[in-house]
Amino acid sequence: MHEPEDASVAIIGIPFDGTVSNRPGARFGPEAVRSATLGAEDYSPYLDRDIATVSIHDAGDLELPIGDTAAVLRVIGENYRTLTAAGPRVVALGGEHLVSLPLIEATHERYGDDLFVVQLDAHTDLRHDYLGVALSHAAVMHHVKARLGADHMAQIGIRSGAVDEWRELRAHPYFFGSLAPRPLESFPAFARETLAGRPIYLTIDLDVFDPGILPGTGTPEPGGISFREAMALLKSLIDARADIIGADIVELAPDYDHSGISAALAATLLRELILMMGKP
Amino acid sequence: MHEPEDASVAIIGIPFDGTVSNRPGARFGPEAVRSATLGAEDYSPYLDRDIATVSIHDAGDLELPIGDTAAVLRVIGENYRTLTAAGPRVVALGGEHLVSLPLIEATHERYGDDLFVVQLDAHTDLRHDYLGVALSHAAVMHHVKARLGADHMAQIGIRSGAVDEWRELRAHPYFFGSLAPRPLESFPAFARETLAGRPIYLTIDLDVFDPGILPGTGTPEPGGISFREAMALLKSLIDARADIIGADIVELAPDYDHSGISAALAATLLRELILMMGKP
Amino acid sequence: MHEPEDASVAIIGIPFDGTVSNRPGARFGPEAVRSATLGAEDYSPYLDRDIATVSIHDAGDLELPIGDTAAVLRVIGENYRTLTAAGPRVVALGGEHLVSLPLIEATHERYGDDLFVVQLDAHTDLRHDYLGVALSHAAVMHHVKARLGADHMAQIGIRSGAVDEWRELRAHPYFFGSLAPRPLESFPAFARETLAGRPIYLTIDLDVFDPGILPGTGTPEPGGISFREAMALLKSLIDARADIIGADIVELAPDYDHSGISAALAATLLRELILMMGKP
Amino acid sequence: MHEPEDASVAIIGIPFDGTVSNRPGARFGPEAVRSATLGAEDYSPYLDRDIATVSIHDAGDLELPIGDTAAVLRVIGENYRTLTAAGPRVVALGGEHLVSLPLIEATHERYGDDLFVVQLDAHTDLRHDYLGVALSHAAVMHHVKARLGADHMAQIGIRSGAVDEWRELRAHPYFFGSLAPRPLESFPAFARETLAGRPIYLTIDLDVFDPGILPGTGTPEPGGISFREAMALLKSLIDARADIIGADIVELAPDYDHSGISAALAATLLRELILMMGKP
Amino acid sequence: MHEPEDASVAIIGIPFDGTVSNRPGARFGPEAVRSATLGAEDYSPYLDRDIATVSIHDAGDLELPIGDTAAVLRVIGENYRTLTAAGPRVVALGGEHLVSLPLIEATHERYGDDLFVVQLDAHTDLRHDYLGVALSHAAVMHHVKARLGADHMAQIGIRSGAVDEWRELRAHPYFFGSLAPRPLESFPAFARETLAGRPIYLTIDLDVFDPGILPGTGTPEPGGISFREAMALLKSLIDARADIIGADIVELAPDYDHSGISAALAATLLRELILMMGKP
Amino acid sequence: MHEPEDASVAIIGIPFDGTVSNRPGARFGPEAVRSATLGAEDYSPYLDRDIATVSIHDAGDLELPIGDTAAVLRVIGENYRTLTAAGPRVVALGGEHLVSLPLIEATHERYGDDLFVVQLDAHTDLRHDYLGVALSHAAVMHHVKARLGADHMAQIGIRSGAVDEWRELRAHPYFFGSLAPRPLESFPAFARETLAGRPIYLTIDLDVFDPGILPGTGTPEPGGISFREAMALLKSLIDARADIIGADIVELAPDYDHSGISAALAATLLRELILMMGKP
Repeated sequence: MHEPEDASVAIIGIPFDGTVSNRPGARFGPEAVRSATLGAEDYSPYLDRDIATVSIHDAGDLELPIGDTAAVLRVIGENYRTLTAAGPRVVALGGEHLVSLPLIEATHERYGDDLFVVQLDAHTDLRHDYLGVALSHAAVMHHVKARLGADHMAQIGIRSGAVDEWRELRAHPYFFGSLAPRPLESFPAFARETLAGRPIYLTIDLDVFDPGILPGTGTPEPGGISFREAMALLKSLIDARADIIGADIVELAPDYDHSGISAALAATLLRELILMMGKP
Repeated sequence: MHEPEDASVAIIGIPFDGTVSNRPGARFGPEAVRSATLGAEDYSPYLDRDIATVSIHDAGDLELPIGDTAAVLRVIGENYRTLTAAGPRVVALGGEHLVSLPLIEATHERYGDDLFVVQLDAHTDLRHDYLGVALSHAAVMHHVKARLGADHMAQIGIRSGAVDEWRELRAHPYFFGSLAPRPLESFPAFARETLAGRPIYLTIDLDVFDPGILPGTGTPEPGGISFREAMALLKSLIDARADIIGADIVELAPDYDHSGISAALAATLLRELILMMGKP
Repeated sequence: MHEPEDASVAIIGIPFDGTVSNRPGARFGPEAVRSATLGAEDYSPYLDRDIATVSIHDAGDLELPIGDTAAVLRVIGENYRTLTAAGPRVVALGGEHLVSLPLIEATHERYGDDLFVVQLDAHTDLRHDYLGVALSHAAVMHHVKARLGADHMAQIGIRSGAVDEWRELRAHPYFFGSLAPRPLESFPAFARETLAGRPIYLTIDLDVFDPGILPGTGTPEPGGISFREAMALLKSLIDARADIIGADIVELAPDYDHSGISAALAATLLRELILMMGKP
Repeated sequence: MHEPEDASVAIIGIPFDGTVSNRPGARFGPEAVRSATLGAEDYSPYLDRDIATVSIHDAGDLELPIGDTAAVLRVIGENYRTLTAAGPRVVALGGEHLVSLPLIEATHERYGDDLFVVQLDAHTDLRHDYLGVALSHAAVMHHVKARLGADHMAQIGIRSGAVDEWRELRAHPYFFGSLAPRPLESFPAFARETLAGRPIYLTIDLDVFDPGILPGTGTPEPGGISFREAMALLKSLIDARADIIGADIVELAPDYDHSGISAALAATLLRELILMMGKP
Repeated sequence: MHEPEDASVAIIGIPFDGTVSNRPGARFGPEAVRSATLGAEDYSPYLDRDIATVSIHDAGDLELPIGDTAAVLRVIGENYRTLTAAGPRVVALGGEHLVSLPLIEATHERYGDDLFVVQLDAHTDLRHDYLGVALSHAAVMHHVKARLGADHMAQIGIRSGAVDEWRELRAHPYFFGSLAPRPLESFPAFARETLAGRPIYLTIDLDVFDPGILPGTGTPEPGGISFREAMALLKSLIDARADIIGADIVELAPDYDHSGISAALAATLLRELILMMGKP
Repeated sequence: MHEPEDASVAIIGIPFDGTVSNRPGARFGPEAVRSATLGAEDYSPYLDRDIATVSIHDAGDLELPIGDTAAVLRVIGENYRTLTAAGPRVVALGGEHLVSLPLIEATHERYGDDLFVVQLDAHTDLRHDYLGVALSHAAVMHHVKARLGADHMAQIGIRSGAVDEWRELRAHPYFFGSLAPRPLESFPAFARETLAGRPIYLTIDLDVFDPGILPGTGTPEPGGISFREAMALLKSLIDARADIIGADIVELAPDYDHSGISAALAATLLRELILMMGKP
């Protein structure tokens, strides 16, 4: 365990699920992922590298106010800025998807308009508000898009949303997936052309995975991507020499999966992200 | 099923758990109780009466905004006032304990300072705020007390809280239970002396029950009361000719109990409350 | 393991739950009890005796037709007669409560009008029919009563039923329990006076127990008896020198209890019954 | 919510699982699907249409006698005839697969010999009887076939059955799947050639899906189809301009899946069927 | 969090369940208790004291070899000696009951023959060996007894064991419980007479509790003690001015209790032990 | 059921999980598979053959000492030699993967250096020891390789391990899978060239399957093979006329899968192996 100043990657847990409209419990995501890492290997055969080679800082879980969403996002943003200012790149563990908003905002401040956001998700999250509430997990990518522009983000694996969201999504230039104008298989070429050397923020809503392999999430949607497809997407980012400078893994609701396979998948994903972002 | 105007008792579901600090999921309480009533008998051998003899209105579940606690409480209060204005006495199904606050406030407006609140609970809920948030399930009885005064409420079964809450609780004239100055057995005499003919609001946080018989709740506390003890408390209210003019059953988090015994208990309790409050 | 002819006690599984109106799954009861016996001790500290001292035959589980209740009961009765004719006393493992009917009928044929039935149960099971179907688990004790007479049966622990059933139950001379005219504590005296030396058939619907200790059943009812209370009831039968010549343990639905405590309780109960019925 | 006369699609729940030979609990299927629809979007990105555009009637769940299979099927048939006579096309929610029999019989009466049945299923259901009982879920497609003829039905996804059933199944002209003479990929061409404009009854036994994505069923069989494969099959029916005039979704046993992914899949499937069958 | 040298109480996790003969999983006990403490209050209304007033060191979980019981016990003993040598009294979190053996041995070395062991347990654990293996959880108290003598230990709550164990147990001078010569109620007097000022090691096998309130254990036995009874036992030790110089809480197998009530009870118990053993 | 002498295939359960480092519970694997076979068909549509045509002996489960790994392996080896000496080929049901070691050793003694081992697994199991313990499930294939040589074994589906294991694995001539130099699709050709007529021992660690379809295992690893892929591998052994003279199915930990799909898959696999190994 390293101090932030000496670490090339930091992990931070954000146990917030206050705007979840369906099944709550993503607040227990960080604890479940940490626990599952104990049963996982340190070595990745996908990347042929061991996380023992990366200097890691675990910043623990944030303590958050309850019932005041704006205050929560403020606390998240402040802590994230402090942590990244110390040096390391950060993988955040949600918590619901809304936690990505202050993370991406802070990253945008730091890296400027070259920043590109890659979203893996079952849901568009493009609502302008949800039941009148703008700060909602269902609106998180709307806010990101309003800030960065549609040409600075890719949406992958989406298969659920309201009719207005889909109208918008279908017009999105970088929408990849089985229901998208662009198939998953075209992502590597896109990445090589557009993302090489560019600062990338990667936000992974775990419900992008098929519910069969990730049942422990708030709103499971049938027909998701497989683990191998996800690994191929990550590999295409490496091959494209994209520069992943921030990432999050959100929407693990472990109490809905007594088998623990959801947390095990998330822990493996965390290992891969650390290896992709960390310097030896 | 009757219209509100023709009903002597109405049921309303309040699927809110936005300030829960431990395990969420009380939002699914109303659905679970309704489902469990299908497996329960209509006849109560405790009261020797059948709910077929009571005219009941089911007002369904409230639709609530997400992430704005004050707005939620406002919506609850408004709907409750409208419903009670139409005639029936209401049993509310939570949701977390904070939902009781607007219900008790509205009841207080209607019945005035003679109102007496009887709280069954594992927790004091007497915090002034929780992590700086005043509108918290952990503070609900503090707000009630501030409004009604300690001599207008009884607290039963409490066995958990912070040190300051307990200092306050121990000074409370009407605190009953195994850890209280007054044992449970002294409640009937108290009821006869103090509650006869008086308007009573009864708020039952299901975690007052022993976790062995009610595991499906957000914060289970060992050492709770038994079902027979609860039935004896209810019976002592009847024997004292107390006038139960409002009630709620809160903090059922059904996803933490796959056996369904928690919902079955809550459904039985609902039947008893309907029979106690309803006119033939 | 002994052959029926050499055994003083036989066990038979009756995996039938075809008339269950609430949650099914009692068909898996026999398998769950057998599995749970592997984790239980052979020695009973309650009776100071070891089942290694009893010659036992396990007759396995009956194969039953599906969807034809009358045929099922016929098959049960025939097998039971054959098994008891070979010598041993039998403990049957349900299955739903209706399986007791052919067992009690066959026992009545064999032992005549001196037979006395002791029923532990949460439910009266005194309906004349259920939704027009006479052969229902909810009517099993009505049929038994019609055959033996109310003065040849005791009903213990009942706390649920329809209004008509309770009218009948309250008039029952031998109704014991917390909601009965006769408290549980009066059973030992009754047993000494009425059951000494008499052939007793003991039918235990596991939902007589509190759902906290037996969640794995089709229709859990709050407020049941404890394990110690049940052991005291059994001991009072021994002390009264009652002659238990047949018994069943029914309504274990193990898939509703992932903790396995329901099956563990049933397995302990089975050991006690074997010891009470078996000769060394 | 519309009245039957004003609806183009009606939903009816048939909570029957009386002939299930393995794990029961399909009686809770309708309730679980309805509950899961609350967490699902109204808009289908697969069909680019919103169920808000369809006039829907929910006919609730049938009340059925218990323990008398013939009576159950009679009640189902009568209710179905009444409901369809009022106008809407009906999606039935099982319950076990035997409930399809009276539905298909009634549909056959109405649409005559042009009717074609498409069955998605893991099991042949071609037994002539099961343990001597003709009215069994394991025999439902045998009865359908006897009535309509093999050339009026397609069987898709089958991967389990007895040796005699498979002898018959292998000779079936329209058997599609990974173990069938005709691969799934050949179904669209078949549909275009044979089903265009024709009245189709679609019966979906959910165990056709891989147990990984649909664990909540009575008899899970490894090696099932994926959700995307199922969507492709449905789309090929649309592309072929087949006229789906009746459908059912059966064998959801929700208590075997605490993650809720099975019910979520079924709810999504229900949305798709409503959209395929309903007129704007 | 304090260093060992500055702490008056230390906690150590011992995730070992290598000799468990029934259901394993006690290795996850320490993690589950730590997690459950997050949902528990710091203040004890039983003792009117807050653990914020105690200086605590958390020594984490031991790393243990797998498959070599003797080596495991050696590692436990060494770590325990080192930790206690630094100053604090220790509460160990099992793990299976065998982990108590090296702890009690080390405590005996330190405190000498005045040491008295109080065992709360469902099982005698007095086997000389289990299937030929002497180092077994089923033999742990046999080894303790061989070292300290029967007159230096009390056994409370036992209700299961083999016939030979019970012969020995019944002769035990200090055996308390519902099946014991001495009822639980006589323990306070015994404590006052025998344990005042004396060094006490308290070993709590959680299966002493009724399975209804503690289902998450390897071998649940019906008929256990209640939480209030346990609290009364602890209080009688305080009242007797016994000097608890070591303690353990063992046999929590959390994966058998998805409701979490077992871990919540254990976490409450841990708080009480810390308060009883810690100096302000 | 046949005696060993008359059987062409025997089944034996080996309920051992003493060296499992992550989640234990494989000791309950044999019981769960046997129970799941009751819900499975006897006929295999994959092989077009019925297990009624094979003479089978069920040797039950071994009784094993607890806490002494070397003794356990000795008992397994002795029982296996006795059983195979009587005639039948044996399918062993684990238990953890270490149980394969004495089985393969005994098979090697009998069949000599022509023996070829085919391993399906998520993990290399090539550690020389695990935390200093050589007899570990994590080292089982290291011991096999040391005895047989790398050119006498194939490793399929591996996707997890330590860095040193992977260095060794990548050099392995016969490593097949999505992360291997040789894709799964090349196995049939390999089998035809190398395995025809040769004695094969097939060891299937169930965690080779994707956790979505086999969640009930100790250490689930995302990205596993599908059931169809496994069936294709088995079929390629048949097509290659390989002579499967021994097999095992290990690492089913059923208590981590309440849906039962893991045991159902294992039971189907068992049927296929029996059919592949048994003579009519």
